[in-house]
Amino acid sequence: MELPPEKQIIFDRMLAQIRQAFNQNCFMPLDTPILELSEVLLAKSGGEIDKEVYHFSKGDTDVCMRYDLTVPLARYVAMNSESISFPFKRYQIGKVFRGERAQKGRFREFYQCDADIIGHDTLSVAADAECISLAQQIFQKLNLDILIQVSNRNILFGYIEDLGYAHETAAILTILDKINKIGIDNAKQSLLTLQVSAQATEKLINMVLLNGRFEDILTQLSQLSQNETFSKGLTDLKELFAYFVAMGMPEEKYVLNVGIIRGQNYYTGTIFETIVPAHPEFGTVCAGGRYDNLATYFTDKKLPGVGMSIGFTRLFDLLDSQNMLGNYPLSQTELVIIPLGETVAHSFELASFFKQNQIKCEVNYDARSFKAKMRDANKKQIPFVMIVGEDEMKSQKYSLKNMRTSDQISESLDTCLQYIQASMNNEISH
Amino acid sequence: MELPPEKQIIFDRMLAQIRQAFNQNCFMPLDTPILELSEVLLAKSGGEIDKEVYHFSKGDTDVCMRYDLTVPLARYVAMNSESISFPFKRYQIGKVFRGERAQKGRFREFYQCDADIIGHDTLSVAADAECISLAQQIFQKLNLDILIQVSNRNILFGYIEDLGYAHETAAILTILDKINKIGIDNAKQSLLTLQVSAQATEKLINMVLLNGRFEDILTQLSQLSQNETFSKGLTDLKELFAYFVAMGMPEEKYVLNVGIIRGQNYYTGTIFETIVPAHPEFGTVCAGGRYDNLATYFTDKKLPGVGMSIGFTRLFDLLDSQNMLGNYPLSQTELVIIPLGETVAHSFELASFFKQNQIKCEVNYDARSFKAKMRDANKKQIPFVMIVGEDEMKSQKYSLKNMRTSDQISESLDTCLQYIQASMNNEISH
Repeated sequence: MELPPEKQIIFDRMLAQIRQAFNQNCFMPLDTPILELSEVLLAKSGGEIDKEVYHFSKGDTDVCMRYDLTVPLARYVAMNSESISFPFKRYQIGKVFRGERAQKGRFREFYQCDADIIGHDTLSVAADAECISLAQQIFQKLNLDILIQVSNRNILFGYIEDLGYAHETAAILTILDKINKIGIDNAKQSLLTLQVSAQATEKLINMVLLNGRFEDILTQLSQLSQNETFSKGLTDLKELFAYFVAMGMPEEKYVLNVGIIRGQNYYTGTIFETIVPAHPEFGTVCAGGRYDNLATYFTDKKLPGVGMSIGFTRLFDLLDSQNMLGNYPLSQTELVIIPLGETVAHSFELASFFKQNQIKCEVNYDARSFKAKMRDANKKQIPFVMIVGEDEMKSQKYSLKNMRTSDQISESLDTCLQYIQASMNNEISH
Repeated sequence: MELPPEKQIIFDRMLAQIRQAFNQNCFMPLDTPILELSEVLLAKSGGEIDKEVYHFSKGDTDVCMRYDLTVPLARYVAMNSESISFPFKRYQIGKVFRGERAQKGRFREFYQCDADIIGHDTLSVAADAECISLAQQIFQKLNLDILIQVSNRNILFGYIEDLGYAHETAAILTILDKINKIGIDNAKQSLLTLQVSAQATEKLINMVLLNGRFEDILTQLSQLSQNETFSKGLTDLKELFAYFVAMGMPEEKYVLNVGIIRGQNYYTGTIFETIVPAHPEFGTVCAGGRYDNLATYFTDKKLPGVGMSIGFTRLFDLLDSQNMLGNYPLSQTELVIIPLGETVAHSFELASFFKQNQIKCEVNYDARSFKAKMRDANKKQIPFVMIVGEDEMKSQKYSLKNMRTSDQISESLDTCLQYIQASMNNEISH
């Protein structure tokens, strides 16, 4: 993705809002390198190189480009665990790289916005609530109407155990994860093929269809199983819900949906996926969850964590494709000064004055004709144009044109400034 | 470079100030990819790979990591020249990559902040003034006392021609560029060895020692040569100076120093280097200049440009090494709430209230002891701590401690907020 500057402005503005939400919630920024030693990035896979990973040698060094922000976090925390004070709340906004993805909506390099809370030995469910609330706050800032679907993996783990199919957990989860794609009947058939009894199949399907207000689903779950793992999941969900309420999370922004699975084996407790209900085709725009141990490959310390991640480049692309970025001008210039004759230097004097007064002002000193410059200002939707000829320079009365209303005044510099400020304030208040 | 989060905060804040200066001056953001096709990045060198460039294949694609932001800009402008309205003012803040540089103060991946103005066919010297003024505004924002040394390459080009040594221009410039390293006597000796006459050698050395206020040096230069190239350089410098004055550039921030050369053959007119007079060992912290043609390798269009570039990672490292980053706390948290007993959820309620009132507030729900949490708040220099026990929850009077003054109050939530706001305002006004 390479945006034209006028869209890049919006992209940057949205990233700044995300950064602001991270900062307001007291997460600390981290900026790990893009290149890491292969032995670090490939530790998890035992050195095996996923075909998506950019991997190469430079001199004696075997390096990879990061493909996520979590492995670098694990390496950082393991390396600095003596000086870090836990729980460690860090965020990182940066590009990650995955090769061979050249399809529409998939990018070879894309921005990811991650926030994680890492504990030492233990970490309260309060941290899970913080990450989910953070996601909610971000989308509120971005003015995007989302729904956060929350679950806890131990619910399904425990229930499968309870039904006597613990040995088939992975296979069962894989089937249940596909239910939206393949449909209920096919899922049932797959479970039966797996030698799951008809009764257990029915129960499992009913379980993953549980989806609704926390209070309602928690009540229904309470009656389903006494299994220890299941109960642990239930207790955590109840605690999580209490924190949501205390944090003032808007009730319509989250549901308990036992059907979300989050494919990776990585997660061990709370999981969540954020969707845009008006655009189901967007899929998951933000996701995350709880993991037992961040940095097994780098340290013996037990570092439980919970995180959230937004694939921002993809999200921006989706919003753009649906014309959901709002209106934007082709320029951020608020006032352009057009010099006529030998008035470029004088125009710079005026521009300094406006810039000191927080107006984004530039001088169009280009060699083109006056007409071409007016056309350009119009095309870029620059709201104000000031024309500075030699007469204006002498009389110190300047022609200012309001491009939206076509009003034109000829006034002193101070009056022109006041006119611009008043119009801009007026615009904001409407 | 991998900064601890408390330093990363300052790094990010400084980058935000630079971005703000770019935006205020109506430059537009661009964010080109980090990976480019090798045929693009290596076009300039005719496909030859500098040993510093990270270069590899992925599938059928031969790619490089960008080593500067200028070649990608050239590619972008050439690709989009039909839709761009010139002069095109773009900035880019991003990482660039150069291998085999693992010395102190040199980084394999580092942030560069570039701003360029690209014209079509022609570009006024006013653009040069804009870039230099932009550099001055940035360092003013960063509160760093700098001096911008300006020259024009045509001065030396023309003078060498005038003295009859046009055929040795490159060799002469190489010698003059080293004068600070090797000293005047050695430079003279090298020129004589090059068969430059004793008289011409004297003149050349005197020329590059010209360094001072624009007005003074311009007057001295006026008398030195009638050569056409020289005169073009002089005229441009005079025009540049007039713009500096019009823009209100502080007089003590810039000098005309004929001795700056800027090694690369790239520049063709105005050149400048920014130094920190109190720290000559920093060398050049920002540099730039005018080039005749941005995108020769990608288009037939004539695209003259002028730019400025800050090697930001290196600058930050230098400031850090000299303890010039100012004081900074280990955290950005302004208020930490410490729950005692079953008050975590209630503490989140209070935290939401403070966050809504723009206080950066977090709840320390960690399993550690109260004492450990107070020690942690103290170590991180968090200015306010609120203690929420079950009694406080019932009475709705909360203990708030001002960690700087050790004052402690026990008041309602509103009063606590007012106390914090008043203390923070008080701090800012001092």
